Amino acid sequence: MKKKKSQTISESTLKRLADYLCVLRYLDDQGMETVSSSVLSSMMNITDSQIRKDLSYFGSFGKKGVGYNVKAFIEAIEKIMNLNEKHNVCIVGVGRLGSALLNYKRIKETPFNIVAAFDNDKKKIGKKIGNITVHNIESIDEVCGNIKCEIAVLTVPSYVVHDVYARIVKAPIASLLNFTPIILTGNDDLLVRNMDFVSELKIISYLLKEKDNADKGKG
Amino acid sequence: MKKKKSQTISESTLKRLADYLCVLRYLDDQGMETVSSSVLSSMMNITDSQIRKDLSYFGSFGKKGVGYNVKAFIEAIEKIMNLNEKHNVCIVGVGRLGSALLNYKRIKETPFNIVAAFDNDKKKIGKKIGNITVHNIESIDEVCGNIKCEIAVLTVPSYVVHDVYARIVKAPIASLLNFTPIILTGNDDLLVRNMDFVSELKIISYLLKEKDNADKGKG
Repeated sequence: MKKKKSQTISESTLKRLADYLCVLRYLDDQGMETVSSSVLSSMMNITDSQIRKDLSYFGSFGKKGVGYNVKAFIEAIEKIMNLNEKHNVCIVGVGRLGSALLNYKRIKETPFNIVAAFDNDKKKIGKKIGNITVHNIESIDEVCGNIKCEIAVLTVPSYVVHDVYARIVKAPIASLLNFTPIILTGNDDLLVRNMDFVSELKIISYLLKEKDNADKGKG
Repeated sequence: MKKKKSQTISESTLKRLADYLCVLRYLDDQGMETVSSSVLSSMMNITDSQIRKDLSYFGSFGKKGVGYNVKAFIEAIEKIMNLNEKHNVCIVGVGRLGSALLNYKRIKETPFNIVAAFDNDKKKIGKKIGNITVHNIESIDEVCGNIKCEIAVLTVPSYVVHDVYARIVKAPIASLLNFTPIILTGNDDLLVRNMDFVSELKIISYLLKEKDNADKGKG
């Protein structure tokens, strides 16, 4: 399998790669060994030509007329996305959303280990949720130094985001998945992705208007 | 203000628009009337030229040397994204994540009204969470017909996703924000956006590797 080196994958392609993985795992669970681009196309609601274009980035997993080998395709994407090794994750903020993530059982089927949680509430500190101990947020630097935590997931209330973010920046943590509505930017040592519920609703609001205009144009 | 008509905004630009809104609202709350592209650039970790490029799509909100008018910029983005009218939202699946979203108090500061919730658990049906009644999922068609619900947010466990999705497709609901790890595609009448926690972790996994390779290249 060939892969062009030093090529940066765009945001939208990365999202599709994650989607391919979900769909391919489903097909693999159903016992399917190969899949055609037209089946993938209808399962993912993208065009055949988009699929062929995506695959041209990463090499070939199939033969014409036979389709793509499901397991080889999964392995290739996992290799590209660095998913063939485990990644330690901590949850920062054990409110409702943080608790929901800590209780997400299917995380065990993924390459991600939730290894610690942090909060500032004395009633929560020292308690266990599942197997995970809730630590004092003040100890995040020390705890993450001991357990090598690559990804922090931020689920604290908005009014403490900047204080908590300052602690995360100083701790040995490589990246942050930010669920709060406060945009964070990261720096050379901390990679940040913002994933905000309300921002997604806003994007839907735009897309509904766009669709409405397109439907009116047709009618 | 000029805006080119019938132009579709790309996914990455849409995300940035939502980010601009968050940052601009923060500046507005702080009493700032204007903002320069270099301040926006550092707050959002994107280049000055990207900001100028984005704004060229939508018209002008500023003068050279003075900066952009914060309120005019907010209003323009709200107009583009169809946020100057209210949108009704329902939560489908009142587990931990669904409850967290139902209890999200800052939703009141947004153009989104959560108006109903649905579940199949008899212990939850008929109860209220805040002001929101939990209805039987079997009545989603009828309830959403009465309250004109534009956006459903899907937070059910994976094993019921396909059953519940079949109900949503038949109900008078225009769009779906899917928080489950099962990719859904929508159709001509139902716009779907997938927003999966684990997919975001996977994208971070790739970006960390890419960053690591870039750092090695520098060293």
